[in-house]
Amino acid sequence: MSVHSKLYEGKAKILYTTDDPEVLLADFKDDATAFNAQKRGTILGKGQINCSISSQLFKQLEAHGIKTHFIDSPSPNQMRVRSVKILPLEVVVRNIAAGSLCQQTGLPVGKLLKQPLVEFYYKNDQLGDPLLTRDRLLLMELATPEQVDAITNLALQINQFLSGFWQQCGITLVDFKLEFGLDSQQQLLLADEISPDTCRLWNTAEADPNRRVMDKDRFRRDLGNVEDAYQEVLQRVLQAVESKN
Amino acid sequence: MSVHSKLYEGKAKILYTTDDPEVLLADFKDDATAFNAQKRGTILGKGQINCSISSQLFKQLEAHGIKTHFIDSPSPNQMRVRSVKILPLEVVVRNIAAGSLCQQTGLPVGKLLKQPLVEFYYKNDQLGDPLLTRDRLLLMELATPEQVDAITNLALQINQFLSGFWQQCGITLVDFKLEFGLDSQQQLLLADEISPDTCRLWNTAEADPNRRVMDKDRFRRDLGNVEDAYQEVLQRVLQAVESKN
Ligand SMILES: Nc1ncnc2c1ncn2[C@@H]1O[C@H](COP(=O)(O)OP(=O)(O)OP(=O)(O)O)[C@@H](O)[C@H]1O
Ligand SMILES: Nc1ncnc2c1ncn2[C@@H]1O[C@H](COP(=O)(O)OP(=O)(O)OP(=O)(O)O)[C@@H](O)[C@H]1O
Ligand SMILES: [Mg+2]
Ligand SMILES: [Mg+2]
Repeated sequence: MSVHSKLYEGKAKILYTTDDPEVLLADFKDDATAFNAQKRGTILGKGQINCSISSQLFKQLEAHGIKTHFIDSPSPNQMRVRSVKILPLEVVVRNIAAGSLCQQTGLPVGKLLKQPLVEFYYKNDQLGDPLLTRDRLLLMELATPEQVDAITNLALQINQFLSGFWQQCGITLVDFKLEFGLDSQQQLLLADEISPDTCRLWNTAEADPNRRVMDKDRFRRDLGNVEDAYQEVLQRVLQAVESKN
Repeated sequence: MSVHSKLYEGKAKILYTTDDPEVLLADFKDDATAFNAQKRGTILGKGQINCSISSQLFKQLEAHGIKTHFIDSPSPNQMRVRSVKILPLEVVVRNIAAGSLCQQTGLPVGKLLKQPLVEFYYKNDQLGDPLLTRDRLLLMELATPEQVDAITNLALQINQFLSGFWQQCGITLVDFKLEFGLDSQQQLLLADEISPDTCRLWNTAEADPNRRVMDKDRFRRDLGNVEDAYQEVLQRVLQAVESKN
């Protein structure tokens, strides 16, 4: 596979075209941003860690019958993926109240939700990724009603599987963000990444609200030991995968 | 009716208890606030104007079969109303894109919506009245699913009636905010007020985006002639009501 030109540089990844027009190469960077890129920094080793964690999780999800963009990982911080047209939606699944949900509802951080909450945000940095109601999403024609229903069902399935997987790692899956896209055959694929950048992950054995944090909130909230936490998450993922095989 | 003690002072109205525990007296003030009370001012005559417009609209809605809290208006800036437990929801109906909808979606101001949009916001000044999804509303137990459905249907009926009424006034009903409450028999009543403070009203004959504004946006956006606009809206309402009788 020879890599062609840079297609797009995002905040966390660079996408390159390849020989095959249906395949892209995603290069994971160490760059970290938060609060709509107002806060910037570097998390050493993040590119490799997030690429490895994402690759493992996509493989597990594929084995579980979920269609993803993942093909393989030719090097530690690179992933070959099916090229898709990303739907401009950030699909967030929440098991426990945290982050903007708490700020906007007054629910206490850590409150266990009776059932998982699937939320849609408009993937638009200029507008600050605002929350969408179903009616707004449809009015803006960001997806069809059938796509919304399919994505909601997929998100709940993915949540059920991943919650169990992270539990085996001794990690509580608080919430996470997914992106979906359509391939050349209009098939809906899970895309982007699943990593400590895009999940809230709490060390299950740890009660302290700062020490339990194993995800990008360490960077957002300047909690320190960011690299260590990311590294620890990867180690636990690799262990859990190994113990399965 | 003898008025008892002050029950609650809001930004636009003071509520007094009366002899009858099921009846409150609402006293409409000239005070104006915007942007969650960060901007403050006075609109001379607003109390009387909003009380008169609201009274007329509630009477029309009652005649149209919509149950409201309105009893009568014993003086120009006072309204007797059924005491209700207000649901902590701001119910917004939109016919044309404006305000926060445009800011959060990128839709252009003035875009006609294919169908009216009914939106729920959490009535909570501390949290800045955030937009609610149906799932968030239910999770927070702000209302039951049956209440949400009943309110949605009522809001659409009210919109249909009011759009026609305002049209007779030569005014385009862009959007408006409603509040609902439960009386002592748990009956759902339309409450609060319907006025240039709570509606976006555009002079239909006027194309200029600033000159057409006949509502609180004149105050919010410092467009001038605020009192005149409110007075003009009242005159047109009274004319429309008279021509009906
Ligand atoms: N399989 C795929 N095909 C096409 N694009 C993809 C695929 N997977 C992910 N992407 C997109 O790659 C882009 C780069 O990822 P990155 O995480 O760096 O972006 P971002 O900075 O978070 O978001 P964005 O730049 O889109 O606002 C994102 O826009 C993402 O939606
Ligand atoms: N029939 C009613 N019974 C009880 N309360 C009512 C009734 N109608 C309106 N209210 C309430 O009266 C209060 C005073 O009205 P006003 O418009 O001044 O409040 P506000 O400042 O806009 O809002 P807030 O409730 O945040 O104070 C509001 O809380 C409103 O919900
Ligand atoms: Mg990203
Ligand atoms: Mg009010």
